[in-house]
Amino acid sequence: MKNNLGRNIPEGKRVFISSKEYLHHERHLIPSKIKSEKVRFFASLEEAFLDCKIQSGMTLSFHHHLRSGDFVINQICNLLEQYKIQGISLAPSSIFPEYNIASLINSGSINNIHTSYLNGPASEAIAKGLLKGNLIMQTHGGRARAIESGELKIDVAFLACPTVDHMGNGSGAYGKSACGALGYGMSDLMYAKKVILVTDNLVDKLDSYQFDHGYVDGVVKVDSIGDPSGIVSGTTRITKDPVGLKIASDSAKLIEELGLLKNGMSMQTGAGGISLAVADAVKKAMIRKNIKGDFASGGITGYHVDMLKHNLFAKLYDVQCFDLLAVESFRNNKNHVGISASRYANPYEKDPIVDKLDVVILGATEIDTSFNVNVTTDSFGKIIGGSGGHADTANGAFVTIITSALSKARIPIIKNAVTTITTPGEDIDVLVTERGIAINPKRTDLLDLLVNSKLTILKIDQLLELSHKICGVPKTPENTDKVIGYVEYRDGSIIDSLYQSR
Amino acid sequence: MKNNLGRNIPEGKRVFISSKEYLHHERHLIPSKIKSEKVRFFASLEEAFLDCKIQSGMTLSFHHHLRSGDFVINQICNLLEQYKIQGISLAPSSIFPEYNIASLINSGSINNIHTSYLNGPASEAIAKGLLKGNLIMQTHGGRARAIESGELKIDVAFLACPTVDHMGNGSGAYGKSACGALGYGMSDLMYAKKVILVTDNLVDKLDSYQFDHGYVDGVVKVDSIGDPSGIVSGTTRITKDPVGLKIASDSAKLIEELGLLKNGMSMQTGAGGISLAVADAVKKAMIRKNIKGDFASGGITGYHVDMLKHNLFAKLYDVQCFDLLAVESFRNNKNHVGISASRYANPYEKDPIVDKLDVVILGATEIDTSFNVNVTTDSFGKIIGGSGGHADTANGAFVTIITSALSKARIPIIKNAVTTITTPGEDIDVLVTERGIAINPKRTDLLDLLVNSKLTILKIDQLLELSHKICGVPKTPENTDKVIGYVEYRDGSIIDSLYQSR
Repeated sequence: MKNNLGRNIPEGKRVFISSKEYLHHERHLIPSKIKSEKVRFFASLEEAFLDCKIQSGMTLSFHHHLRSGDFVINQICNLLEQYKIQGISLAPSSIFPEYNIASLINSGSINNIHTSYLNGPASEAIAKGLLKGNLIMQTHGGRARAIESGELKIDVAFLACPTVDHMGNGSGAYGKSACGALGYGMSDLMYAKKVILVTDNLVDKLDSYQFDHGYVDGVVKVDSIGDPSGIVSGTTRITKDPVGLKIASDSAKLIEELGLLKNGMSMQTGAGGISLAVADAVKKAMIRKNIKGDFASGGITGYHVDMLKHNLFAKLYDVQCFDLLAVESFRNNKNHVGISASRYANPYEKDPIVDKLDVVILGATEIDTSFNVNVTTDSFGKIIGGSGGHADTANGAFVTIITSALSKARIPIIKNAVTTITTPGEDIDVLVTERGIAINPKRTDLLDLLVNSKLTILKIDQLLELSHKICGVPKTPENTDKVIGYVEYRDGSIIDSLYQSR
Repeated sequence: MKNNLGRNIPEGKRVFISSKEYLHHERHLIPSKIKSEKVRFFASLEEAFLDCKIQSGMTLSFHHHLRSGDFVINQICNLLEQYKIQGISLAPSSIFPEYNIASLINSGSINNIHTSYLNGPASEAIAKGLLKGNLIMQTHGGRARAIESGELKIDVAFLACPTVDHMGNGSGAYGKSACGALGYGMSDLMYAKKVILVTDNLVDKLDSYQFDHGYVDGVVKVDSIGDPSGIVSGTTRITKDPVGLKIASDSAKLIEELGLLKNGMSMQTGAGGISLAVADAVKKAMIRKNIKGDFASGGITGYHVDMLKHNLFAKLYDVQCFDLLAVESFRNNKNHVGISASRYANPYEKDPIVDKLDVVILGATEIDTSFNVNVTTDSFGKIIGGSGGHADTANGAFVTIITSALSKARIPIIKNAVTTITTPGEDIDVLVTERGIAINPKRTDLLDLLVNSKLTILKIDQLLELSHKICGVPKTPENTDKVIGYVEYRDGSIIDSLYQSR
C-alpha cells in the first residue's frame, strides 16, 4: 500500500493524504480527570515503581526536558531490568544517546517505542531489527494529539520535575536541576492513567508552576534527577563557520524581501548555530527598521531572551529552554510564557502557536526536488533524529525556510528522493544554501515578491546539479525491506516507513 | 453582652475572645465547584442581570480593584433601582465615595452590607440609621474566610475584569482598564453561586490569568468598566511633610535596632505617604547594609517594584496594585506574584502571607492606652474606613508598627479608649509618633532590645499626656446606643459594635 507521497505503508495503517487532511476530521479527546485524592509521597523511586504494578503490555512515558542529563529514565530502565519486566512500550518525548535503553531493547524488556526524536545506541539496536514491536516516530504536536485522543494510552508517566511543593505542584523554573519550561510533559501529566513526579527539590509552596497537583498521583524525592551540565547548555552559540554565516545573512535578507520584517511579526528558529545566526541577523534588521514583533516561539535560547528584553518581540512562547539564560528569563519574565506541546503544535488545538507563525527557520538532513525533508534518518536509513516540531511548524508557518549547506561531509543534501520523509514538500517553501536559494514552485506568491531580488534565486534542480558538480553523484544506499517502524505525520497518518539496515 | 475587650455585643452573636482564638477552631470549607458548562457571553449587562433573576434576599458581591474608578457596581445599582428590586445584601470588598449606593440604602433596595472598607455618602446614610439590616465590617482575610466557609453566601458575583478571553478566563494585567492583581475577587470567583465577569476588553486567548473560566458562568462586554484615572494612581508619592518624614526615619531606625533588618526579611507597608517614606528609608538601609530580603506584600506601589528590581526583595506578594508601575511590574515580572485574599490573610489558610511577615507598618485613626486601634470610624462614630488588611497583618506579623502624628487637626490620636476597635491591642506592638515611640509593655522582648536605643522610647500614657498638653483634652463625643452594625474580627467573632450618630 502506498500513501499520497508514493511511500510504502503496511496494510491497515492510516495513510498520509496531505498536510491539510486533518482539517476534515474532528478532534478526539479522552477525559482528563482532576484527581480528588491527595498526592502520595513515596520514600524511593523503587517504592513508587512497585506501587505502579508495572507489567508487560504497559506504556511508560517521560518528557525529555532534562535532555542528555536525565537520570530519571535511566533509573526506571534499571528497575525494569532489575525486576525482569518484559514487553513494555516506552513513550519518551525524545531519546538521547545517554539514555541506557539499548540493552532493554536487546532483552525484550522494551518492545515498542513512541518518540519524537531518537539518537544514539538505541537507534543502532533498532536499526538491527532488535525491537520486537515497532518504533513510531511522532511530531511534537502529533504526540500531544495522540495522547489526548487516547491513540497513545499511557499507563504511567514518570515526570522529572526540578521542584515540587508539598501539595504536589511541579515547576521547572527552580532548583539545582532547573530546566525551565516543561511543555513536552503536559499531555502526559493530564492524560496518563498514573502520574509520578520525580524531583530532587521539595519546597513548601510554589507561587507558580506548570504541573498542577490535581493531575498528580505520587511524588518521589531522589538525590538528583539529572546532571546540570547535560540539562541546559551554559550558553548556546551562533555559528562561526563562514558558510553558515552566509546562509544566515541571505536568509535574513530573504525574510526582508518577502515583506516578513514588519510590526507584529512572529518567528521561530531552532537552537542550531545557523538558526541562531539567522535570529541574530533578523534582530539587527529589526533594530535598524525599528520593528516591534509579536512573538518568537519554540525552543528558547539566550538570543531569544535578548530580543524579548529589547522589546523586539512582545512575548516568547516557550516549550523548552535550551540554555541558562532562557531558564532565568522563564523564571522571572511574565512575557516569557511556558506553553504545552498541545498549545504549541497540536493540529487540533484551537489556534496553536505554530499556526500564527509568519516564518520558521528549520534544518534538513536531506531535501528532495519535491521539497520533502528528512530529519529522521541519514542516507543509510539509520535514525539520527526525528521531527520534533519540524513538520508541525512547517505546516503552521506562513513561510517555511530550510537552511543548510549544499553538502555535508561532501555528501549533497539535495536528493531526487529523500531516504525518509519527515515533512512533506507541500509545507516547505524555501531552501537557502550558500550557493543559492530555491523557492517551492507552488509558492508563486513568494516568487512574485522576489522578481527583482538581489539574492541568487535558482530552481532546486539547478542546486542539485551544482552540488553534483561539486561532490559528484552519490551512490544511493539501500536498506532491507523489513519494516521496523513508521514515521507518523502530525495527524497520526503514516508518512513513511522505517527499515532495518542491511 | 460584652466581649473580652469589654465592648457591647448584641445577644446571640459570636463574641471576640482573643486574636489567637481561631487556632482552636477547624477550618470550614464549602465545596467550590469547577463548572462543566460553557461560559455564556451576554450582549449587555442588563441581559446578564436579568438572567440572574435577582430578587429580595439575595447577596450580590463585587471586588474593589477598580477603586474609585469602578463603573460596574454603579451600573448594577442602577439596574437594581430600575427594576425596583428590594432587600438586597451587598458584599463588595470595599466601598468608595464614588459608589452610588446611598440612594439604594434610602429606598430599601439594599438592606445589608458586608464590606472591608467604607467611605463616603453610603457611610452617612448608614450613620443616620437608614440601612434596614446591618453593616458588617470585615477584614480582608476575614471576608475570604467568611465566603469560603459559607458564612457569607454570595448568590451572584459581578466581577469587573479588565481583560477576558474567549474561554472566559480573566486578567487584570491587560486592557485599557488594567488594574493589576485581582486578589480580592478570588473568593467571590470560586464560591459565588453565579459568577459574571464584566469586561471592556475581549481577547482571543490569555497566556496567563487570575480568573479561571472554570469558575465563570457568564461574560459581559461593556464599553467601559471604569475610569482609568480612578483605577490606579499614575504614581504614589512619599510624604513631604517634615513630621511624616521624622516618623518614617525613626521607624526605619527602630526596625534596624530591633534586628529586623536582616537577610531573608519580609515587610509590608501601605501606600500612604508615611508608609512609603518608611519603605524608602528601609530601602536605603538595606542597600547600605547589603541586605537581601525575602518578600514585600500587600498593596503594591512603584516603590515596592523598585525594591524588587534592585533585588532587595526576592518576591512581591500582591493582592492589589496601587499605581501604574505596580500594574506594569505585575504584567511583566514573574517574581511579582498575584495572591488571593485568602492566601494573603485568611487565618485558616495554611501559611498565609501575613503570618510570614517580620514587620508591618500600619496607620491609625485612633489608638488607645491598651494599644487597641481604630481605623473604622472617626471619633464621632462615623464610618470613615475599615480594617482592610489591618487586623490581619497586625495579627500575623512578628512586629506591628503603627505610625502616626501625635495629633491630627489638633485632635490627639491617643485615647483612653478608642471609639471603635478595629484591631485588638494584643496585636499592636509599637506606636511611632514624631515626639516619641511607645512599645506595648507585653513585648518585653522588644523592650530588651531597645535598652540602649538612641530613639525616644516613652510609655504610651506619657505620649497621651504630651498630646493633651499640646492639644488640650478633647471632649468625648457620644453616639446613640442604637446598633447599626458590627466590626467582625478576622475569625468572624464580633470585636465591636457600630452605632447610629446622634
